[in-house]
Amino acid sequence: MLVVSGPGCSSVGYGATQEIGPFIVDANGNGIKYNPDSWNREANMLFLESPVGVGFSYSNTSADYNILGDEFTANDAYAFLHKWFLKFPSYRTRIFYIAGESYAGKYIPELAEFILDRNKDASLHINLMGILTDAEDWRGMVDYAWSHAVISDETHRVISLSCNFSSDNTWSNNDCSDSVDELLRQYREIDIYSLYTSVCAGNSASSDQKSTQVMFTRTSNMMPRVMGGYDPCLDDYAKAFYNRPDVQKALHVSDGHRLRNWSICNEKIFNEWKYSKPSVLPTYTKLIGAGVRIWVYSGDTDGRVPVLSTRYSISSLGLKITKSWRPWYHQRQVSGWFQEYEGLTFATFRGAGHAVPVFKPSDSLAFSSAFLLGDAPPSAR
Amino acid sequence: MLVVSGPGCSSVGYGATQEIGPFIVDANGNGIKYNPDSWNREANMLFLESPVGVGFSYSNTSADYNILGDEFTANDAYAFLHKWFLKFPSYRTRIFYIAGESYAGKYIPELAEFILDRNKDASLHINLMGILTDAEDWRGMVDYAWSHAVISDETHRVISLSCNFSSDNTWSNNDCSDSVDELLRQYREIDIYSLYTSVCAGNSASSDQKSTQVMFTRTSNMMPRVMGGYDPCLDDYAKAFYNRPDVQKALHVSDGHRLRNWSICNEKIFNEWKYSKPSVLPTYTKLIGAGVRIWVYSGDTDGRVPVLSTRYSISSLGLKITKSWRPWYHQRQVSGWFQEYEGLTFATFRGAGHAVPVFKPSDSLAFSSAFLLGDAPPSAR
Repeated sequence: MLVVSGPGCSSVGYGATQEIGPFIVDANGNGIKYNPDSWNREANMLFLESPVGVGFSYSNTSADYNILGDEFTANDAYAFLHKWFLKFPSYRTRIFYIAGESYAGKYIPELAEFILDRNKDASLHINLMGILTDAEDWRGMVDYAWSHAVISDETHRVISLSCNFSSDNTWSNNDCSDSVDELLRQYREIDIYSLYTSVCAGNSASSDQKSTQVMFTRTSNMMPRVMGGYDPCLDDYAKAFYNRPDVQKALHVSDGHRLRNWSICNEKIFNEWKYSKPSVLPTYTKLIGAGVRIWVYSGDTDGRVPVLSTRYSISSLGLKITKSWRPWYHQRQVSGWFQEYEGLTFATFRGAGHAVPVFKPSDSLAFSSAFLLGDAPPSAR
Repeated sequence: MLVVSGPGCSSVGYGATQEIGPFIVDANGNGIKYNPDSWNREANMLFLESPVGVGFSYSNTSADYNILGDEFTANDAYAFLHKWFLKFPSYRTRIFYIAGESYAGKYIPELAEFILDRNKDASLHINLMGILTDAEDWRGMVDYAWSHAVISDETHRVISLSCNFSSDNTWSNNDCSDSVDELLRQYREIDIYSLYTSVCAGNSASSDQKSTQVMFTRTSNMMPRVMGGYDPCLDDYAKAFYNRPDVQKALHVSDGHRLRNWSICNEKIFNEWKYSKPSVLPTYTKLIGAGVRIWVYSGDTDGRVPVLSTRYSISSLGLKITKSWRPWYHQRQVSGWFQEYEGLTFATFRGAGHAVPVFKPSDSLAFSSAFLLGDAPPSAR
């Protein structure tokens, strides 16, 4: 299992030390604390800093940094996996899953496709069984912002009338452009990744950074999926932790004196991201055809990759429904709803923001456990 | 100021002892605790059990119970007010506001209209300055359930295609009827009044009652607005508290031995509710014309009188926008958004369920304070 995020963000900083790893960063980077809901209760986990430039990962070939994009990342991640299996051959035949959130909704299907293609060579075979991720589109984000009372009826109407998100010239329309700016302005007031929680108070530097993260690059062939993650305070803790001399020394990334600067998201990578597939939906179709287990999930209080976006994406796949919409449960409460399609399961997490395990650690462990076992999400109270 | 709720529900059990009164019921009815955010920091408050049959209120004329409806209630509430002012004449000239939630969204405009009409007689004059309430419609409830991932795309599509909520024969269409049943079935799994919180666990009697409350009477001339309130556990505490012998004796409703049975909502009143205006929107127009200050607010995580319903209702009034959509703040966080129209202010409470002050006590005090002062909601962080 492998968890990635991005573009430019650290799966160690997010996934491992905020979400599903065995230890979670503690307030102000003072240390780490035991996570009773770590997913390694159910599976071995690898966290990959991908592509180069993320976290402490780097390349000695500086030209690499100029060509970063989805394909480069898939290639690189595959190269890593290949080498890792050479080094740890006893894991070669184990069942393999890929999980991730946010921009990983692109990385993961692309990497999975890469693995399937390479699997034709038996010596390179990776036993890929399933993927667990999310999916999004622009229209869903706009409808979500309106129905969750973040933008006005008027702004929603103008966007609906003037924006063509499947065009290459979306932003040449001033009405559309101005109204989307208005949407971003409103979202900058709260945490777009978690609509109903507070923003990290008292650290203005951090909130400024958050703002720039929301100001994603608006090109129609670059999906507006950015730097995943939640709670700028957790981000701050991770930053403090990974910039500690003793931590860097223990991780063998510095000698404990000449420190390396660690940031949770590399904005340069994000801003200069070159190659991004306009849509990974055809990849989904291919993976479904190959029998890869696919679960797509969404925290329903996340405005960044909102549940409506994920629904629109899945809907456009045109899959046949095999089990209709119903709740799934954890600890006698409704954790969310799910619907099963031929080849794909879609599930929501009720009241969870973008980084689902931060909000629902115990539910998300039960959910991933069902995924690994090949069961449906727990559907009895 | 006067707070009402319903139909059939107790404004003492809800408003006074769960929401904005000086004392709030404590766990399991053990007692009451001081409420630092009570609205009586800003105004004198009257809580009215309305109509007869609600809480400890009663009528000796049993025929009264057969004709309960909106108009009876407005009449009765006015009769109470009139007698109260006769008894406490020093309050006669004070500025008067009416506030309430849920079904009070109908009661309040109707009572306000009643007062305005009677005010033509100077001896009966009540200095009505403003009303603070919510508003709803069916279509908003359906769109809200869909956009908040409570119902599937498919159910939403069928309802959109087959239901005509402005018809008298809405329920004669089987597709519509079945799909609305499906919507209600999903909502019965969670707390419709607060989408992202838990339901009161361990008290199955209470959750059963909750279910029946959600199963509102579906007639098109009876608005589907039911028994307001939040958290079945708080309801249980209130029930335990008001059924205590010492409490009933202190309230002079029993001698402390022959107890009177108190319930937070009278289901008989709800089920047999006779006369309900199909829409109070014309009443709003009349009140706006008379210069009554009108604030309409909505907790944006309430599925029962959802923010979309309130928006659709306000939109159909066709008022001119005077101040466009923007956040309002409390304690440096976004409390919600608001928009000002000629004669009406609409505001949301971010992350609040149906009984807003239960979720956002301090925000709601600041909000009502601005309303009383004639200011806008606090619009600087």
